[in-house]
Amino acid sequence: MSEPVGGGALLTPWRGTVLPEWTDYNGHLRDAYYLLVFSMATDAMMDMIGLDEAGRAATGHSMFTLESHINYLLEVKQGTAVEVHTQVLGADTKRLHVFHKLFVAGTDTLLAVNEQMQLNVEMSGPRAAPFAPTVLPRVQAMAAAHAGLPRPGYAGRSIALPAAQQRRD
Amino acid sequence: MSEPVGGGALLTPWRGTVLPEWTDYNGHLRDAYYLLVFSMATDAMMDMIGLDEAGRAATGHSMFTLESHINYLLEVKQGTAVEVHTQVLGADTKRLHVFHKLFVAGTDTLLAVNEQMQLNVEMSGPRAAPFAPTVLPRVQAMAAAHAGLPRPGYAGRSIALPAAQQRRD
Repeated sequence: MSEPVGGGALLTPWRGTVLPEWTDYNGHLRDAYYLLVFSMATDAMMDMIGLDEAGRAATGHSMFTLESHINYLLEVKQGTAVEVHTQVLGADTKRLHVFHKLFVAGTDTLLAVNEQMQLNVEMSGPRAAPFAPTVLPRVQAMAAAHAGLPRPGYAGRSIALPAAQQRRD
Repeated sequence: MSEPVGGGALLTPWRGTVLPEWTDYNGHLRDAYYLLVFSMATDAMMDMIGLDEAGRAATGHSMFTLESHINYLLEVKQGTAVEVHTQVLGADTKRLHVFHKLFVAGTDTLLAVNEQMQLNVEMSGPRAAPFAPTVLPRVQAMAAAHAGLPRPGYAGRSIALPAAQQRRD
């Protein structure tokens, strides 16, 4: 593995093209398949921290998504080349908090964002477990590398109708 | 259409079985495919309010997902029969705020929940537009039927590490 950890730069865990089977009756990426793209980006981050297939077998651990929040900003047509840029928002001994942004590849056209809370799990339970000693330092290095980055405006959102949001403000 | 609007009971817009192509290397429903199930439940709600294929053609409208928040509570194995129960949390002239719960079919075993904000869109733009006159009364009837229901505990959540949550409390 040659993981791009460190230096504060965002990670780019996934690049690819919007497949026909991911689109709706209008030929646009269906809401659930934005999340499939983000999910594959999370898979790539698991590889980066040592929880690829070999690492999962060696540790008996994997990661489960606890919670996921998506904002859909633009439609995406079939065949569009896209890429995910990822910022680590935080981590503790068993959780990894990440923020993915989906762009048209090679541009600053932002299509959607996805905040996720991932939990490290001992598969024999399955039960929550601290990251393995081989994994924890990589998680901590990733989190430290991004600790100084500004927090994305879409992080920490809750969903409400505009009228309800005004009442809260 | 024989939509089950009214009476305050939750809607049951989708029933089905977890397909092999929706599962991960462990044979469990992958995170993105929970959202596909919820997305199909939203499709069925569009049918209920008159935005089925014929209604979309007649009005020139459709609905886009603005924002979606999922909590994953239990793993679901391939072949499991599941069903979605849905509560309308609110609506305005162009938005529908819904809360889906995924259960093992015929049981009270809750697998995941999904809060969504849907926007009515004039497809010729596409641009946000008020619900069509044929649609708005159905949306309002749905929202009114659920106005007295208790709000789900998972509604309105934001994502944070436990330590960050404590600092906010």
